[in-house]
Amino acid sequence: MKKATLIILALMAAATVLPVRAASTVPPSDAESDPRKLGWMVGFPPPAEKVIAPPMSNFFTWPKLRWSVCHMREMQATRRIARGVGAPYRAEEALDSAIDEVSFTPTGSEKPMTWRESLAANYTDGILVLHRGKVVYEYYSGCLDREARHLAMSVTKSYAGLIAEVLIAEGVIDDSRPVRHYVPELAASAFGDATVRQVMDMTTGVRFNEDYADPNADIWAYAAAGDPTPKPESYTGPRNYYEFLQSVQGEGRHGEAFSYKSINTDALAWVIARASGSDVVTLLSERIWKPMGLEQEADMMTDSLGTPLVAGGLNLSLRDAASLGQMLLQRGQWQGEQVIPEQAVASIAGGGDPAKFVPAGYDTLPGGSYRSMWWHLHNDHGAYSARGIHGQAIYVDPKAEMVIARFASFPVAFNAAIDPTSLPAYQAVAEYLLSKHD
Amino acid sequence: MKKATLIILALMAAATVLPVRAASTVPPSDAESDPRKLGWMVGFPPPAEKVIAPPMSNFFTWPKLRWSVCHMREMQATRRIARGVGAPYRAEEALDSAIDEVSFTPTGSEKPMTWRESLAANYTDGILVLHRGKVVYEYYSGCLDREARHLAMSVTKSYAGLIAEVLIAEGVIDDSRPVRHYVPELAASAFGDATVRQVMDMTTGVRFNEDYADPNADIWAYAAAGDPTPKPESYTGPRNYYEFLQSVQGEGRHGEAFSYKSINTDALAWVIARASGSDVVTLLSERIWKPMGLEQEADMMTDSLGTPLVAGGLNLSLRDAASLGQMLLQRGQWQGEQVIPEQAVASIAGGGDPAKFVPAGYDTLPGGSYRSMWWHLHNDHGAYSARGIHGQAIYVDPKAEMVIARFASFPVAFNAAIDPTSLPAYQAVAEYLLSKHD
Repeated sequence: MKKATLIILALMAAATVLPVRAASTVPPSDAESDPRKLGWMVGFPPPAEKVIAPPMSNFFTWPKLRWSVCHMREMQATRRIARGVGAPYRAEEALDSAIDEVSFTPTGSEKPMTWRESLAANYTDGILVLHRGKVVYEYYSGCLDREARHLAMSVTKSYAGLIAEVLIAEGVIDDSRPVRHYVPELAASAFGDATVRQVMDMTTGVRFNEDYADPNADIWAYAAAGDPTPKPESYTGPRNYYEFLQSVQGEGRHGEAFSYKSINTDALAWVIARASGSDVVTLLSERIWKPMGLEQEADMMTDSLGTPLVAGGLNLSLRDAASLGQMLLQRGQWQGEQVIPEQAVASIAGGGDPAKFVPAGYDTLPGGSYRSMWWHLHNDHGAYSARGIHGQAIYVDPKAEMVIARFASFPVAFNAAIDPTSLPAYQAVAEYLLSKHD
Repeated sequence: MKKATLIILALMAAATVLPVRAASTVPPSDAESDPRKLGWMVGFPPPAEKVIAPPMSNFFTWPKLRWSVCHMREMQATRRIARGVGAPYRAEEALDSAIDEVSFTPTGSEKPMTWRESLAANYTDGILVLHRGKVVYEYYSGCLDREARHLAMSVTKSYAGLIAEVLIAEGVIDDSRPVRHYVPELAASAFGDATVRQVMDMTTGVRFNEDYADPNADIWAYAAAGDPTPKPESYTGPRNYYEFLQSVQGEGRHGEAFSYKSINTDALAWVIARASGSDVVTLLSERIWKPMGLEQEADMMTDSLGTPLVAGGLNLSLRDAASLGQMLLQRGQWQGEQVIPEQAVASIAGGGDPAKFVPAGYDTLPGGSYRSMWWHLHNDHGAYSARGIHGQAIYVDPKAEMVIARFASFPVAFNAAIDPTSLPAYQAVAEYLLSKHD
């Protein structure tokens, strides 16, 4: 792929609000950049050159990022997504080491690669494969282990999209209504006359520049607004996500085409809060974590008002990410209970409009679509996925009855560079699992 | 009590590193200052006058403090004390509502008060009484419920002291050695020639002014050093707890008398980390939270290097605080396992030297002592307690086989004002439980 294409994809692909840095040369390998090997934050005190701490321009540069993605709460204020006090769900295990040898051909390549090889190629911190609800593959590396919480990046958006679908199914939100119906404060912004559905599917016409290389890009003003620490005295910009959203201007027309802009999720989160009386953090706890008995609490990054960073601030365990996918695969059922309405899952699993997806030019997702903050592959397995930069994913393959959860810390911040060695790998394991049980 | 006495007690009693404000007039009652009634941080966004956020001079003033004590991780960076992924311990329940009517006479008063009345008098956020390991009383109010984590203030110190006793019992630390043996960087500080035991019992001769009313007090330099956010460019002081400790000067002689100074706990924590290779956060997880299967993770406040604020930064659930007390009551046994050495408990339960305690002048703890960061009452029940300002406590009464855990948000920052309506109440309930099972 040409560098120019990579840059374009970087701007269009699943970006978060966090600063990233593209590698101009071949970066150190997975093993070379392993945070355990590099010894960050070890010692009492750690040596100065091994300290990782705020500001973000320090802790979120690569390879420090490979440590930071498991330690976000140690960098800034967070809110907990409570799991309650019950016994945790424990998935059955039926580990199959033959998966390591499953072979596939990376997109655009002629040389086959094994599943196991793909993990290092993708700087995978952890990957878990569920088949018919059982753990058939579980791998941890870098900063991650079963207990750690990993930054989910834009996978967070998909959790917010799911919550919105639940509220739609319950009649709490009408997705055909304009945003201003729920949030009068947004009436004068570009979101005001967009429908909730357009926000959920990111077909709004809003101006939001996520070009991290441009110091004047909106993403930086957004990050400054969302910084939970006290603002400098000289600061005059928006002071939180609510204020930022009200400043968003229009660009293009609502409803015409998919255009990935993180602030849609923030606008959706405001609609959710106003319509339901609870914000996404509370709803994730009450609607997902507690009824599912998830294994561990999650951490959510926030602005100074405690507003969740729904665009990318969720930190959770790999097992809990996989369980979410499994619950979707089971059409909202979990341990014999319908924990979320089947209609909510159906809306996501059905995918969006591929025609509106084409103009966005996602080379690695041909024929795909975007629906309710989820990416749909429209392949013959009906697969759909939550996706976050640096390689985060919750991948649901209904035909193969397979769920894959992956956390990673890939050196560059766009999934188009990771997809060639991951999407075909997922498909190959799906086919292996299908054939195994023929 | 005279105001001058109150101020002296404020300086001498269980202080933390957090700023506090003494009430000059009668403060609003428990019900009037209930954070649920005051509606902090409610709404999307909350009204400006209901926002609680950093800096500390905002979020830690009373009555905002009554909300903040349950939301510390939402204010600043924290580290998790992991509980692992196992099923949580669940105490048996044998609730006894007659405890509400147990009557006692507050110290220095002639008018009796019931247990139930004492809860509001003490601005109690939560209190749990265990008798023979069963929950006989459980009460939540204000910001607290069973799931919330509450700031333990100086109760944190007692956890660090317990960890030190465990390491002594295991031969990892020799408490007769000078601090400089474990931490050469402290050789030139006042701590260098103090023994680890003197640090644990706070009989060191070190200069540390915890007078919150004095802007030049050491406590402010300590707080600035420990602030985990980036330092201002003009800042020239110590940048973390390690640097601060190295600057501590002597005052008086080691070993002569108990003198409550929070920095002793930080020095102890450095010894613990160097001797064991793990810091207090890791050790609390590995030695307490995981082996006991505690119900919920805890949050620890830190400096910019992730150094735990062992003087007062632990945030945990009330049930988990009570379980710690119960494990001590059981001399280190927990669900049939010896989770910590009996010797570690014996050292704490035996108390310190009352003669060294006298000069400190704690009117509400006559005949008491301080040992390994725990307060001993030397009463006929052999009771000892972890204590933190604003009313935090883990109170162990071996004779009555009773443990009381309490979190509170009393308007003023010293326990001497709370003890008159709590210590006699604890004793009365202990006697009630003893008589009930005669």
